[in-house]
Amino acid sequence: MRIDINSDMGESFGAYSIGHDQGLMKAITSANIAAGFHAGDPSVLRETIRLAKASGVAVGAHPGFPDLVGFGRRELNVTPKEAEDIVLYQVAAVAGVGAAEGVKLQHVKPHGALFNMAVRNAALSAAIARAVASFDPSLILFGLPGSEILNAGRGAGLRVAAEVFADRAYEPDGSLASRRKPGSVIHDAAAVVARAVRMVKERTVVAIDGSVVALEADTICVHGDTPGSDELAAKIRAGLEAAGVTVKAIGAS
Amino acid sequence: MRIDINSDMGESFGAYSIGHDQGLMKAITSANIAAGFHAGDPSVLRETIRLAKASGVAVGAHPGFPDLVGFGRRELNVTPKEAEDIVLYQVAAVAGVGAAEGVKLQHVKPHGALFNMAVRNAALSAAIARAVASFDPSLILFGLPGSEILNAGRGAGLRVAAEVFADRAYEPDGSLASRRKPGSVIHDAAAVVARAVRMVKERTVVAIDGSVVALEADTICVHGDTPGSDELAAKIRAGLEAAGVTVKAIGAS
Amino acid sequence: MRIDINSDMGESFGAYSIGHDQGLMKAITSANIAAGFHAGDPSVLRETIRLAKASGVAVGAHPGFPDLVGFGRRELNVTPKEAEDIVLYQVAAVAGVGAAEGVKLQHVKPHGALFNMAVRNAALSAAIARAVASFDPSLILFGLPGSEILNAGRGAGLRVAAEVFADRAYEPDGSLASRRKPGSVIHDAAAVVARAVRMVKERTVVAIDGSVVALEADTICVHGDTPGSDELAAKIRAGLEAAGVTVKAIGAS
Amino acid sequence: MRIDINSDMGESFGAYSIGHDQGLMKAITSANIAAGFHAGDPSVLRETIRLAKASGVAVGAHPGFPDLVGFGRRELNVTPKEAEDIVLYQVAAVAGVGAAEGVKLQHVKPHGALFNMAVRNAALSAAIARAVASFDPSLILFGLPGSEILNAGRGAGLRVAAEVFADRAYEPDGSLASRRKPGSVIHDAAAVVARAVRMVKERTVVAIDGSVVALEADTICVHGDTPGSDELAAKIRAGLEAAGVTVKAIGAS
Repeated sequence: MRIDINSDMGESFGAYSIGHDQGLMKAITSANIAAGFHAGDPSVLRETIRLAKASGVAVGAHPGFPDLVGFGRRELNVTPKEAEDIVLYQVAAVAGVGAAEGVKLQHVKPHGALFNMAVRNAALSAAIARAVASFDPSLILFGLPGSEILNAGRGAGLRVAAEVFADRAYEPDGSLASRRKPGSVIHDAAAVVARAVRMVKERTVVAIDGSVVALEADTICVHGDTPGSDELAAKIRAGLEAAGVTVKAIGAS
Repeated sequence: MRIDINSDMGESFGAYSIGHDQGLMKAITSANIAAGFHAGDPSVLRETIRLAKASGVAVGAHPGFPDLVGFGRRELNVTPKEAEDIVLYQVAAVAGVGAAEGVKLQHVKPHGALFNMAVRNAALSAAIARAVASFDPSLILFGLPGSEILNAGRGAGLRVAAEVFADRAYEPDGSLASRRKPGSVIHDAAAVVARAVRMVKERTVVAIDGSVVALEADTICVHGDTPGSDELAAKIRAGLEAAGVTVKAIGAS
Repeated sequence: MRIDINSDMGESFGAYSIGHDQGLMKAITSANIAAGFHAGDPSVLRETIRLAKASGVAVGAHPGFPDLVGFGRRELNVTPKEAEDIVLYQVAAVAGVGAAEGVKLQHVKPHGALFNMAVRNAALSAAIARAVASFDPSLILFGLPGSEILNAGRGAGLRVAAEVFADRAYEPDGSLASRRKPGSVIHDAAAVVARAVRMVKERTVVAIDGSVVALEADTICVHGDTPGSDELAAKIRAGLEAAGVTVKAIGAS
Repeated sequence: MRIDINSDMGESFGAYSIGHDQGLMKAITSANIAAGFHAGDPSVLRETIRLAKASGVAVGAHPGFPDLVGFGRRELNVTPKEAEDIVLYQVAAVAGVGAAEGVKLQHVKPHGALFNMAVRNAALSAAIARAVASFDPSLILFGLPGSEILNAGRGAGLRVAAEVFADRAYEPDGSLASRRKPGSVIHDAAAVVARAVRMVKERTVVAIDGSVVALEADTICVHGDTPGSDELAAKIRAGLEAAGVTVKAIGAS
């Protein structure tokens, strides 16, 4: 039994610092690194890849919308072609900076609104998958279990990884509960750890209505931008290892 | 006897069109493609690489300052580290989009103020050369003959290419005459063609004071943003071929 | 009987030129000037205001989404507060540059996707109207007849102007026919002029199905980014004047 | 005897927070508010003006270079015309958002590299002063004592304010000691307060070589981006008031 732990990294920009990259790198196995469109800049990108390498963490690209002021969190009505081109560009940039640092890109995880729009949008998901596959068909594409992005990834011949969130509530249909619902974010660390262990060992989660839902889980996302996120990540990892789960980068043999 | 002809390409941006890429691609052998910092965008970049491939033109990266409104033409006081990181990022992006299109990157030519600042700045030139060499040591670095950038390229183990301008006047010391001087830009097509042929066959140019100056010449730059630039480029190429010069991409065997 | 003729102006950016501002200024009475978010830059803005002043054309702000690469034409899922703040900022910038040139701002016309989203979105329209009214309650807000933006403008105590398009087909309900429909854009100059005259004199338009639709018309929009747009604008103005219509800026007494 | 205390404010951007605006607003009398070019965004700008108004702090514009990733701290070789236009645009934006909030703009202080370049550059300083005067001749222009910017401001008919830094060492000629020199930044709060009091009451400062230098002082700048800057500002204000100095916005009657 094994699992990957991923987190969004490299989101600082110029004089602006955000996140807890140093601390989180000790707990995670895969880093989703911002590419400069929704966050990050060329120097932050390079330093984050160095930090990941030094920490033994696998590197992925985290492409987002060109909306720095909105942090890539606002839906932007791009055409599939535009989406394909901005994903390809960002994947290329992260992969190339990685190559200069002697690190091979492992995966791609779309960011924010691009990630969310792709869940149900088959054309957008196909565009993202095409971009990734055209650049390197050995890359692993991350997405929500049951989402169009995973279908599109498989259709493009890519390996995909189903991503779960231990600190987020789920609906009975396996989708994430809206952040606007009370109880949609779980703050109790022990509960989060227990959910993570259950997700990995039993492939289930207790949904917001109390029902038990089956859930694919190849990688667990830990958030990096909340206070204490590095400590929570460390607890999740420790809890998984204590439960006999091997915590390892998704692409590691 | 052979020569490369290069031009800046892919400088359109979103709804904004600039240049004569379609026409120029018929005459040149190497395209310097903007990477989105001073000009270009992910879609323009990809389409320009496709156009170069279809035209049998070799592809290079044309990294510039992050100054879209200034078109990368204004000096920006970056540190060598910042320069290294922005060059690496842009080279990676162009190379990666090229890879997705089945095109290998041939060369790197810094753009505008970055190019000009590097002529005499050894630390900046070393940073640029480091970025290029760390990404791919087989890339060819373009620069003015006698400039620091060529020294830095050689020092980093890169192949370099000395670039000449057939439509620009030269000083007796082999440097370009300032655009502010009368006669610094040659508008007569026949004169430009004759200069190009002489540069390639004799490795000399008649300077602005009438003296004859020796000049390395591996690649001739033709400007893309002036009216009739595509016709001028066609004439230069025809003139060179009529004079028995093989016009071929710098990296072609 | 009088009418205003407006056009989008000042959309060039740095080295990038777009539009036919010089020619159009001779025919129009109100200029919607880009504020640097979707198009334009501080120098273009100022020069366009000077050109408008010299041409006796009234000046308005043309605020858009912060999406230069998309030219403000892509829907961006902003909150009403974000919309209010970006509209206020852009109106302030255009008004202030106008003040430095001795020109008082006459009107505000949202641009592109912001304009289109506001047609049916009451909350977004209210946010835009609040921004305008908070800056200067004497400004005139432009929008489609029957749109939420005109309701919101009136609700905020603003004078509003119903805008018509002489070169666009209309649906029987008075809305614009989608550009994807055949015949949605009218290219014949004589037909466009005749439609303009009818819109102003009879307050009606022949819809795409042949029915006659009543239409408020305070200002006619002429497009600036198509070839020959300046000549078409001149013909529309001449046609209106020949039909006895006074062509005058909306805010002129 | 009176003095103004100013600080740079509103430098957060989208999801990125920077500075200690809430705390500093309790101690200062004039806020230099970023305009979105080197820092800040339309929402941050508006909220910062509201905070200043609620705190009884006067509002100024803090225009900088369009270099967000460099935080406006890198020299950019703009023409005087470009400088004039970007300053005018930013002053207009801050003033207009202030107007919507019922706050009149008091002053303008150029930011970062623009501020530093203007110290010795008469043409650049004249351009900045022209921009300010053309927008509103009642604005107060901030600059280093003895700098070209103050000369240019006076030449343009503006009121100017000489700005001093209580936590920075001075050279015997009255210029700021380079940050690279040991001892150039004074970290001891009591020493900073004592320097501030002496600057205001005696119009002198002890330079880095021990000599006593005369110094005009209309406003003291406190930095906002260092840890504890809000507490230091409070101590400076308390120290000045305890020494019988009236701490009041520069433009207050």
